[in-house]
Amino acid sequence: MSEFSICRLDAGSPDFSQALEQLLAWESVADQNVISAVTEILREVKARGDAAVIEYTNRFDRRDLKSAGDFCLDRAALTDALERISAEKRAALETAAKRVRDYHEHQLQSSWQYREADGTVLGQQITPMERVGIYVPGGKASYPSSVLMNAIPARVAGVDEILMVVPAPDNQLSDLVLAAAAIAGVDRVFTIGGAQAVAALAYGTETVARVDKIVGPGNIFVASAKRAVFGQVAIDMIAGPSEILVICDGKTDPDWIAMDLLSQAEHDEQAQSILLSPDAAFLDAVANSLEKQLETLPREAIARRSIAGRGALILVRDIEQAIEVSNRIAPEHLEVSVDDPEQYLPRIRHAGAIFLGRYTAEALGDYCAGPNHVLPTSGTARFSSPLGVYDFQKRSSIIYCSPQGADTLGRVAATLAKGEGLDAHARSATYRVTEGGV
Amino acid sequence: MSEFSICRLDAGSPDFSQALEQLLAWESVADQNVISAVTEILREVKARGDAAVIEYTNRFDRRDLKSAGDFCLDRAALTDALERISAEKRAALETAAKRVRDYHEHQLQSSWQYREADGTVLGQQITPMERVGIYVPGGKASYPSSVLMNAIPARVAGVDEILMVVPAPDNQLSDLVLAAAAIAGVDRVFTIGGAQAVAALAYGTETVARVDKIVGPGNIFVASAKRAVFGQVAIDMIAGPSEILVICDGKTDPDWIAMDLLSQAEHDEQAQSILLSPDAAFLDAVANSLEKQLETLPREAIARRSIAGRGALILVRDIEQAIEVSNRIAPEHLEVSVDDPEQYLPRIRHAGAIFLGRYTAEALGDYCAGPNHVLPTSGTARFSSPLGVYDFQKRSSIIYCSPQGADTLGRVAATLAKGEGLDAHARSATYRVTEGGV
Repeated sequence: MSEFSICRLDAGSPDFSQALEQLLAWESVADQNVISAVTEILREVKARGDAAVIEYTNRFDRRDLKSAGDFCLDRAALTDALERISAEKRAALETAAKRVRDYHEHQLQSSWQYREADGTVLGQQITPMERVGIYVPGGKASYPSSVLMNAIPARVAGVDEILMVVPAPDNQLSDLVLAAAAIAGVDRVFTIGGAQAVAALAYGTETVARVDKIVGPGNIFVASAKRAVFGQVAIDMIAGPSEILVICDGKTDPDWIAMDLLSQAEHDEQAQSILLSPDAAFLDAVANSLEKQLETLPREAIARRSIAGRGALILVRDIEQAIEVSNRIAPEHLEVSVDDPEQYLPRIRHAGAIFLGRYTAEALGDYCAGPNHVLPTSGTARFSSPLGVYDFQKRSSIIYCSPQGADTLGRVAATLAKGEGLDAHARSATYRVTEGGV
Repeated sequence: MSEFSICRLDAGSPDFSQALEQLLAWESVADQNVISAVTEILREVKARGDAAVIEYTNRFDRRDLKSAGDFCLDRAALTDALERISAEKRAALETAAKRVRDYHEHQLQSSWQYREADGTVLGQQITPMERVGIYVPGGKASYPSSVLMNAIPARVAGVDEILMVVPAPDNQLSDLVLAAAAIAGVDRVFTIGGAQAVAALAYGTETVARVDKIVGPGNIFVASAKRAVFGQVAIDMIAGPSEILVICDGKTDPDWIAMDLLSQAEHDEQAQSILLSPDAAFLDAVANSLEKQLETLPREAIARRSIAGRGALILVRDIEQAIEVSNRIAPEHLEVSVDDPEQYLPRIRHAGAIFLGRYTAEALGDYCAGPNHVLPTSGTARFSSPLGVYDFQKRSSIIYCSPQGADTLGRVAATLAKGEGLDAHARSATYRVTEGGV
């Protein structure tokens, strides 16, 4: 058994700001070797299409692909997997999918227009993207819940075609992942991964149609490839390690709170679990519970390193101070485990997802509550949102001027265009102004 | 006088697809020298703050800054500029700002919640970002309209603080730009530009507070810097040259349509102007008008190179085929200069902004119609939207489980968590399940 350790801080101490900054410090490091490798892979796939995809896949995933057909799965392969999994797991996936779908339907945005007094119509037309690609990690980090969370919002948005890539290292594929793809309505699956899969989706190959957006998590090669193709296609955020911040008044069972912290810690050694409470004795009780419960976890080693390296128990003056600290951190997951938690919502400025009350374990949000589990990490909740239907819709402005509206607006536009030295702009507007106008 | 030339295509010819692809081909090239320079500037500003910003600004913009105070303008400097400009220009800016504000208020999104039968509450809380930075190019490409279009949506979203950076090469600053900043409600202006300004906004310095999002156009150094800091802060799209696609039935005055095409062409030699019409004689008439009107433009040289290098007149079978071609191009600006244009809206899938009818010159949208002029270029309307209020708001999911809801959901989550080998997730959920549960 390893020694138990976790960082303890006091928000009232003079060096707290600095200590908090150190605690949060984390940077994704893509070294020059990764960037060079990714640049080459992108260039090769762009130039040589399927042939390059096959070569890289055989090399990195130890496959024996002969032709592009060998990395394609159709809908039948997905529904076959659905038949193979247990009835209990299938029912759980279907329940989760239904709840995720119901929730995301609330996010659908509709086109709108309004007419001005002179007859000019202004508005915005909202339409779905045509084709999107979902990256699903293979091997051990292969999560069916992630398939549901990425594909269902796209389907609800009305995207025409959803492609999925998932690597099959040593020909291993997860039936649960394929079953989730069947349930979520994925159209085609390609068993490829890494930067070569990102390149295939971004540029298109003979077999893989070019997509408009690539979403889903991946390793440093995948993240670097997504950053490089950003702009040619849309991408979601580049995710950092998962985090939870729990605010508790000290009246929730310490074993519950400890297990909530451990549910983040077991993801990844870099994951971060932080508890804020005004009750020092409660912090001690949670520390004891963490120590006790860690030993019972199958993923003890990972969770222990995460808790020791990045976890923290922080004493605060009161719940208000806890929320101030939370707003500075902008956590991915925020649990507010207190009485009457809704009163605090207006003061919470930045968080990916907010779990209110003692009964709302963060894990429910990972699987089946309905909201998306793809959330902004590493403080990016300051400016990013959970993945949603809005990520798969886009907008076109609509302007339909009446002759009278064109007259009024043309005069203003001509004045401003001349101020910017853009004469053709001014004249184009002035043509629609009635005689004697400008 | 130069020779007039413009590409002519026929959408019915067998090699049309290939010709169209060649016409659209355009790639932003950031060579290795630019990337190295930007990487160094970002690193220096991150490490040394104001001192590095001052050094680069003095070197690149030929300034003589002694301290950070020398690059700061407060609100008074902006309102002074507003007093200096002509009454006509001020009125035009104020009219434009009011219309842009009115339109963008239609984009405000509100938080929502719903309660399920067992008492569980789900929803999304929508909040503004705290602080954003607007990049405004200096010198000749310094456009007051761009200040309005970037700042007003942020103000409407409720952003607490709007910073603006605008370089002042050789100490030159545009009164119109500063006046627009005053009208749009910009809080502070820093007279810095280039990658050093992007770095200051992204990382913060002693003087420039770190922002959550950086928006606004810039040269290749600015674009490369924005790509590099993407993820640490949000950025808007990296814009390519401006484009217009006009669909006309042949019944609009050819001089009007020619001037609409020229209003794009005068922006930039790389700008692209394309006309689609089923009326071959009309295409000839527009070609003649282009030739005739080009000679009269102050920016003739730029517009001529744009029309010759990237412009095109394309014969189509009918308006339906024109829309098909337009959907493939996904233009930034789309003019539909036909009778009863609204009938075509449902078939238009991708466009930044749609200008309907013969009276709606694209230039009206650049200045004062109301919709934003920051639009997706180079085919990115397939997956991007006009800049809007939604770009300055972000969302937090809300989950508040009732005890009964936690019981139901906990069982599903535990099954799925076990399937993914995440035991702590399963146990955290199971703690909230009533006895005898899982």
